[in-house]
Amino acid sequence: MTNDTKRAPIGVFDSGIGGLTVVREIIGRLPRENIIYLGDTARVPYGTKSSRTVIAYSLHNAGFLLSRGIKMLVVACNTSSAVSLPSLSREFEIPVIGVIGPGAKKAGEATKSGRVGVIGTPSTIKSSAYKKALEAISPQIEIYSRACPLFVPLAEEGWTEGEISELIAKEYLAPFKEYDIDVLVLGCTHYPLLKPTIQKVMGDGITLVDSAEETAKEIESMLHERDLLNDGTGAPAREYYLTDVSDTFVSVAGRFLGERIENIEMVDITGTAL
Amino acid sequence: MTNDTKRAPIGVFDSGIGGLTVVREIIGRLPRENIIYLGDTARVPYGTKSSRTVIAYSLHNAGFLLSRGIKMLVVACNTSSAVSLPSLSREFEIPVIGVIGPGAKKAGEATKSGRVGVIGTPSTIKSSAYKKALEAISPQIEIYSRACPLFVPLAEEGWTEGEISELIAKEYLAPFKEYDIDVLVLGCTHYPLLKPTIQKVMGDGITLVDSAEETAKEIESMLHERDLLNDGTGAPAREYYLTDVSDTFVSVAGRFLGERIENIEMVDITGTAL
Repeated sequence: MTNDTKRAPIGVFDSGIGGLTVVREIIGRLPRENIIYLGDTARVPYGTKSSRTVIAYSLHNAGFLLSRGIKMLVVACNTSSAVSLPSLSREFEIPVIGVIGPGAKKAGEATKSGRVGVIGTPSTIKSSAYKKALEAISPQIEIYSRACPLFVPLAEEGWTEGEISELIAKEYLAPFKEYDIDVLVLGCTHYPLLKPTIQKVMGDGITLVDSAEETAKEIESMLHERDLLNDGTGAPAREYYLTDVSDTFVSVAGRFLGERIENIEMVDITGTAL
Repeated sequence: MTNDTKRAPIGVFDSGIGGLTVVREIIGRLPRENIIYLGDTARVPYGTKSSRTVIAYSLHNAGFLLSRGIKMLVVACNTSSAVSLPSLSREFEIPVIGVIGPGAKKAGEATKSGRVGVIGTPSTIKSSAYKKALEAISPQIEIYSRACPLFVPLAEEGWTEGEISELIAKEYLAPFKEYDIDVLVLGCTHYPLLKPTIQKVMGDGITLVDSAEETAKEIESMLHERDLLNDGTGAPAREYYLTDVSDTFVSVAGRFLGERIENIEMVDITGTAL
C-alpha cells in the first residue's frame, strides 16, 4: 500500500456519543492512527427507527466519511451494525467493520459453560443481533439477554459507580446469576463506562466482553492483514463532527473518550432539515 | 355552539408516550369528552431537535388531528409547548393549549415564599420555558431549575417507587432543599408517575405542581367559557394513533394512562420515511 493510503484516517460513526468508547479503544491500541468521528446527533436515536431508515442514515454517514478520504469504516453503533453492514460493504470498497461481530466472536471463545448473557438497549436486544451472531459461531451456545434502559442515562450522567448504579445493576443483572452464565457481553457502546460496577455485581468469575475493545482488536488485525497500518511518525489527527449541536455530547464526550476533545465541527450531511 | 361541535373530540399530541398523563387527567376531569391522541413515536425525541424542526413536526401533528375534526388542540409535549404554540395558534382557528402555561400559572399562585423549583428533561430546562412563563406572571419569583434525565427511563421501566427511585430522587432534589423552595413544578409529562416518591423526598411542606393536572383544569375552563363542553350521553370515544410502531408505548401506555388502551393505529402523517 502507498504511504498516502496508510496515513489516511480511520472513519468512525455512531448515532451519537457512545461510539467514542470505540474511538478510545482504537487510540489505546493504535495511537498513531488518524481518526475522523461522526456523531449523527441530529437524528439520534437510531434504535427506535425502521431498518430502512437506519440503513439510509448509515449510508449518509459513511458517504460523508468517505468524502474525507478514510481508509476503513467503523460502524460504532449497535443498531446500525445490526442492519446496515451488508449495504455498506456492498456500496463501498474500503474495509467495513461493525461492533457486533467482534463482541460475539470473543464471547464464543471465552465461554466454557456455553451459557452467555447479553445486555444492551431495548432495540439491540429486540433485534437479537448478538444472539444471531453468536448462534452462527456456535449453535450450541445458550444465550440469555436483557435490555437495561437505565444504563445509558447513568453513563451520560456520570453516575457510573456508587450506590445508585450498583442497585440498578443488581436489579438488571439478577436473572443472569440464576441462568448461571460465565460470559456477559456489554452490547452497547455506553456500557464500558459501567464496567467496574457490572463486574462488582456479577463477581470476578464472570468474563465481561467489551464490544468496543474487541472491535479495536479486530480493526488492528484487519489493518495489519491489509498492510494499512499507519507507519508515519507525525502527531495523529483526530477530527470530530456532529450533525447537530448537542450539549450532552460536549459535556460528556471527554468522559467517554478518556481525553479532551479540542475541536467539534457541525456538518449537514443530508441537505434536508427534516 | 352546535351539538356537533360540542361532541367533536379533543385532539392531544405528544412526541411519544408522556402526553398520556395529560389524557389521564382530561378523562378524570371530563369523562364525557371524546379524545384523539397522536404520539409521534417515529420522530421522538423532540428535545434534541432545533426549534424550526419541532415547529414543523408540531404543524404536521396538528394537521392530522384537525383533519379528524377536533374542537380543541392540546400540545401535551413540553418541548413543543415551549416553541410551537404561537405558530399553531396562528395556523388554526380552534383553541390551542400547551402544558407549560397552566403549570407556571399554578406555581405562581401556590408559592408563598416566592421561591419555586422546576424539574424537567434537559431540553425543557435548557429552554427556560417555565422560567420565562413564571417571570411573565410574577417577576419577583425566584426560580431554581434542574434537569433530571433518569426520571423518564425510571417512569418507563415502572420503577416509580422503592429504593432505586428514592435514591435517584434524593440525588436530583437535594439542591432544592437548600434553595428552600415551597413549590416544585413537575415540568415533564412523565414525572406525574414519580409524584409519590418526589413528595416523599421533598416532604409534605412542598407543593408539587403537576402540569398535566393543571392543563386538564385549564382545558375544562376553556371549553366551559366557549360553550364547547360535550353534553352528549353516549359512551365517549378514545382513539390512539402512533407514527411508528413502538414497543415501549404498547407496554407502558396502560400505566401512563391509568386504563387499558384497546386500539392503537399507525399513521403516516408526513408522507416521507426520512
